[in-house]
Amino acid sequence: MVDSAVKKTMLHGDAQSFEQWARVQRPLIETCLAHAVGTAATPDVANQSPLLAAMSHGLMNGGKRVRALAALAAGQLFGAADATVLRVAVALECIHAYSLIHDDLPCMDDDDLRRGQPTVHVVYGEAMALLAGDALQTLAFSILSADDLNLAPTAQIALIQTLSHASGVAGMAGGQAIDCHHVGQPMAMMDMQRMHNLKTGALLRASLIMGALCGHVDAEQMGALDEYAQHMGLLFQVVDDILDATQDSATLGKTAGKDEMANKPTYVRALGLDEAKRYADSLYESAIYVLSAFEPARAQRLADLVAFCAQRVY
Amino acid sequence: MVDSAVKKTMLHGDAQSFEQWARVQRPLIETCLAHAVGTAATPDVANQSPLLAAMSHGLMNGGKRVRALAALAAGQLFGAADATVLRVAVALECIHAYSLIHDDLPCMDDDDLRRGQPTVHVVYGEAMALLAGDALQTLAFSILSADDLNLAPTAQIALIQTLSHASGVAGMAGGQAIDCHHVGQPMAMMDMQRMHNLKTGALLRASLIMGALCGHVDAEQMGALDEYAQHMGLLFQVVDDILDATQDSATLGKTAGKDEMANKPTYVRALGLDEAKRYADSLYESAIYVLSAFEPARAQRLADLVAFCAQRVY
Repeated sequence: MVDSAVKKTMLHGDAQSFEQWARVQRPLIETCLAHAVGTAATPDVANQSPLLAAMSHGLMNGGKRVRALAALAAGQLFGAADATVLRVAVALECIHAYSLIHDDLPCMDDDDLRRGQPTVHVVYGEAMALLAGDALQTLAFSILSADDLNLAPTAQIALIQTLSHASGVAGMAGGQAIDCHHVGQPMAMMDMQRMHNLKTGALLRASLIMGALCGHVDAEQMGALDEYAQHMGLLFQVVDDILDATQDSATLGKTAGKDEMANKPTYVRALGLDEAKRYADSLYESAIYVLSAFEPARAQRLADLVAFCAQRVY
Repeated sequence: MVDSAVKKTMLHGDAQSFEQWARVQRPLIETCLAHAVGTAATPDVANQSPLLAAMSHGLMNGGKRVRALAALAAGQLFGAADATVLRVAVALECIHAYSLIHDDLPCMDDDDLRRGQPTVHVVYGEAMALLAGDALQTLAFSILSADDLNLAPTAQIALIQTLSHASGVAGMAGGQAIDCHHVGQPMAMMDMQRMHNLKTGALLRASLIMGALCGHVDAEQMGALDEYAQHMGLLFQVVDDILDATQDSATLGKTAGKDEMANKPTYVRALGLDEAKRYADSLYESAIYVLSAFEPARAQRLADLVAFCAQRVY
């Protein structure tokens, strides 16, 4: 319930402002990612170099780092230490990278190209790609349980609960399984929404929640953040489907039109392109609306983040 | 340093006694495993049933449950609550099952048979087997971070550190990668030992350590347990190689002679069969010797465990 006076002061997201901030954060994130893979090795590095190289190839792939940025933005809203959130952000990107490496394998999406680069199995072979994904998942939990994370053990446990829930059978992997199981079959709008909520939404949502868990957050604020996160997660997937249907491979850095060719359920297929765009707009508005639970100045970055997700072109 | 008087009172492991105890424990373990997969589902179970079925097929495969039993044995030595150790044991078996599902995939060992049953990818397809392995790994960390584990958060963190270290790039996955990378190449005894220490030994060792972490354990005792665990882990692998070279597929419940055919480095290949058997005997003696750090009555089950590992025929 927002009366018109409140509505006038509602936040307006600025994608460009987010991108400017992101350009400063990304090099820090990349440094932390490289460090995480580098220090994961045992002293006997030589013998493991193909595995570490494959992990690094999958992780350091020039991604947008939306999950890491979401964690940092939520962490700042709740006064978390950037150094701690950066570690958590690395764990999130490890999970994301593992899922991409496994998705690209021949038995899944069989994709040779990811952000303009050959995929991990193309360069290192399927066996090493499989192991690299496996080890990146493990690394995420290793990072979150590290003694020097500078968080209370209870907060670390909450992070591990959140990440494992978001990536397992009740989250990302579960969503993937529904996707695999429905290729070529019609899917009701509600089922598709549920699939995307699990497959993509759960980890994006976890990114925001985990950033917040590094700071000081009460249950009411967490509820508002979670509602924002759900809208943002859905928006992200709807935009993904729109881009897959409208952009070329060079812009996307991956094979365009793959979903269409693979006969996968997408929002564009279910709603048509125009209606999918209108749906994206309404998700943007809903996410912005939920942010009225916070002081406008503090919530600005999250407003910018959702604008960034709505307006991205790759 | 053991004088002859002490030597006389040294423990003697009894494999049969271990098997009797194990026969009582295994149904409890199986019940907990089934419960873990059953409760991993979201309310919308129907859509995820192929994933849960694949996870269950990989997990409930009639395995010996050596890791779970090792955790229970070590937990009892240190006064841990069986109910808690059982949960930890399930996490260990989830990691072990995930590694077997992924190992069996066509891009790795390409095995159709596991303990006399068709492997997960044969029944559910490669994509679902890949996801089932992924989700079982996640489930392990979900279990260890659960609020109702009845352990202090610091102990839960220690468990997660131990398991992630043992299964990632510095453990099981790292050992697998070395193995993959050396197929068909000669490998020095020291390198092979290191590979097995990571590939098989690390998780067996973690099983004992994690069982102990559920109880009350000081640094000195943990050191002794860790030394015992290292001998046991190596012994397990040497016996595995001996069985692969000497038993038929029906007894093993998996394809016998696979290592030989795949030109993999094994102890039998490196040492010859007789010397490999002598090496196994010496590892057994070393493990038993280390147990002299504990009261004989309390350490009896660990002595029986290593006898069981030495004398197993499948």
